[in-house]
Amino acid sequence: MSSEWKPRDPKYEARVRESFGRQTHMATLGASIVLIAPGQVHLAMPFAPQFCQQNGFLHAGAITSVADSASGYAALTLAPPDTDVLAVEFKINLLAPAKGDEFLACAQVLRPGRTLTVCRADVFTTGGTDRVLIATMLSTVDTLSSAQSMSAYHCMKGRSRRAGAK
Amino acid sequence: MSSEWKPRDPKYEARVRESFGRQTHMATLGASIVLIAPGQVHLAMPFAPQFCQQNGFLHAGAITSVADSASGYAALTLAPPDTDVLAVEFKINLLAPAKGDEFLACAQVLRPGRTLTVCRADVFTTGGTDRVLIATMLSTVDTLSSAQSMSAYHCMKGRSRRAGAK
Amino acid sequence: MSSEWKPRDPKYEARVRESFGRQTHMATLGASIVLIAPGQVHLAMPFAPQFCQQNGFLHAGAITSVADSASGYAALTLAPPDTDVLAVEFKINLLAPAKGDEFLACAQVLRPGRTLTVCRADVFTTGGTDRVLIATMLSTVDTLSSAQSMSAYHCMKGRSRRAGAK
Amino acid sequence: MSSEWKPRDPKYEARVRESFGRQTHMATLGASIVLIAPGQVHLAMPFAPQFCQQNGFLHAGAITSVADSASGYAALTLAPPDTDVLAVEFKINLLAPAKGDEFLACAQVLRPGRTLTVCRADVFTTGGTDRVLIATMLSTVDTLSSAQSMSAYHCMKGRSRRAGAK
Repeated sequence: MSSEWKPRDPKYEARVRESFGRQTHMATLGASIVLIAPGQVHLAMPFAPQFCQQNGFLHAGAITSVADSASGYAALTLAPPDTDVLAVEFKINLLAPAKGDEFLACAQVLRPGRTLTVCRADVFTTGGTDRVLIATMLSTVDTLSSAQSMSAYHCMKGRSRRAGAK
Repeated sequence: MSSEWKPRDPKYEARVRESFGRQTHMATLGASIVLIAPGQVHLAMPFAPQFCQQNGFLHAGAITSVADSASGYAALTLAPPDTDVLAVEFKINLLAPAKGDEFLACAQVLRPGRTLTVCRADVFTTGGTDRVLIATMLSTVDTLSSAQSMSAYHCMKGRSRRAGAK
Repeated sequence: MSSEWKPRDPKYEARVRESFGRQTHMATLGASIVLIAPGQVHLAMPFAPQFCQQNGFLHAGAITSVADSASGYAALTLAPPDTDVLAVEFKINLLAPAKGDEFLACAQVLRPGRTLTVCRADVFTTGGTDRVLIATMLSTVDTLSSAQSMSAYHCMKGRSRRAGAK
Repeated sequence: MSSEWKPRDPKYEARVRESFGRQTHMATLGASIVLIAPGQVHLAMPFAPQFCQQNGFLHAGAITSVADSASGYAALTLAPPDTDVLAVEFKINLLAPAKGDEFLACAQVLRPGRTLTVCRADVFTTGGTDRVLIATMLSTVDTLSSAQSMSAYHCMKGRSRRAGAK
């Protein structure tokens, strides 16, 4: 499905790589880019003992982090030049324990838009004989001008002032 | 919290009533407006046997319908003149069976914005001695010009063309 | 994917039809069953002017209702005999206006379980030359004994008593 | 609301502290426990440059991690002895940029259950003069026997075998 989308910025791959390189959280988690295509980004992350929950599985927050970045960058592949993306919201279902040597978050755009893009990301464990789906995310990504994204989020843009605020 | 928000359109109450009056789905469900305040709308809906699931409880889709409309109208109370609201997405947790004579959906704005407003809605059964929380919704509402909302949704605005489309 | 799932009850199709027949909300909306297969249920619903939002599109709550029922019944195709299903929660993204003559909600199980089943449902408009994806839902469905589902929801089962309650 | 819930295990506080101590991801993020009460857990996390997104704000995945752990532990305060908790799913809305020196995730149980507990978590920036709501999460938490949680997730429990699997 997402392979049908046509990017508006021919340099979409370089933009994704450059932005990903600035996400210190991805470097901390050891995540790397596996695929960049129009409307699709896949990120890999190895198991690491310092990102676990109480039973030694990868913490849901670590899984969510790579699924969220993969989704944002899937949206960025279709965004116009001089824009940036920010997650508005996401929902994730955790389907199976995050056991395995490596995790792969595969995000694709379901519907791109001028401002809002909807993405789906599936997270798999890999490394064994089988690829197991362990989580699936549905997210909404906002496209902002690069200047806006440096300063503030969507909801801050001209929001209603609280009564009494100066 | 929402009582702090300051409306940008002094006629917000009339706008909500007028738009609600055009929602045939609300009329079909027998829903009515209980409260309109800046950042808050409460809707009531009676139990009715024609909107039930397989065991005679109100269908989750009926509960969701009033929670969604309450949320959209809570957002509309804070929207500028000549704009309309459309749900981008919502998530609802169903906490208890929709048993009771009447249901009350209480929505409030958590964060208003120029384009995106985030709302929470709690749905209660009423009519007995107790008020029981049966569902809670978290939603994202988009604010569009009235003209835009007549024709198309957020994701349609200038969306990427599929490769090969004319 | 869902075609791989093996039903535990050979009479799964009859069970879905019987339960669907008891959902008065589906009858009210004019919904009908298009497909029942292991892990998959498709429901159709015609456009009807009495279930609309303020601009004459189908209300998101109507779309959600058929997506929710399709998801619950997709889960029911894989449930053991003498059990029933209830939605725990769902999230839906609305991608395009609900314009069209007919709507098709296609649900599939992503991961079935003894108690919890995760489903995805895509909703399309049909009737024109094109099939357009207008919404996508991700949901969690609980499997209960038939007796339990007649009386109460998951969260009511043996819940913590409030301090001071008798 | 959550202050009304009555714990079933008088040692709930020690259980939360012991489990939290095993979450290496929380230690990595520098998170600490601020409050444990029946149905409520608050976690704090300082800003740290190694968990950021592309513009130097805290990554949504880091915010989500502490909100998720706070929610799970809020559920654990009400769980019976010899059980453990695992997130089934969650949804988060990101309301404002994660700017600030410290972040506080405040989770509370909305409805506890024998198996499923629904929680809400609000995340605030603190450290300045104002406390700003930057995110809100709605989640479903599963309660398992401690033995189950060591081995597998909810959806793995007796799941339907794929056709052809041995």
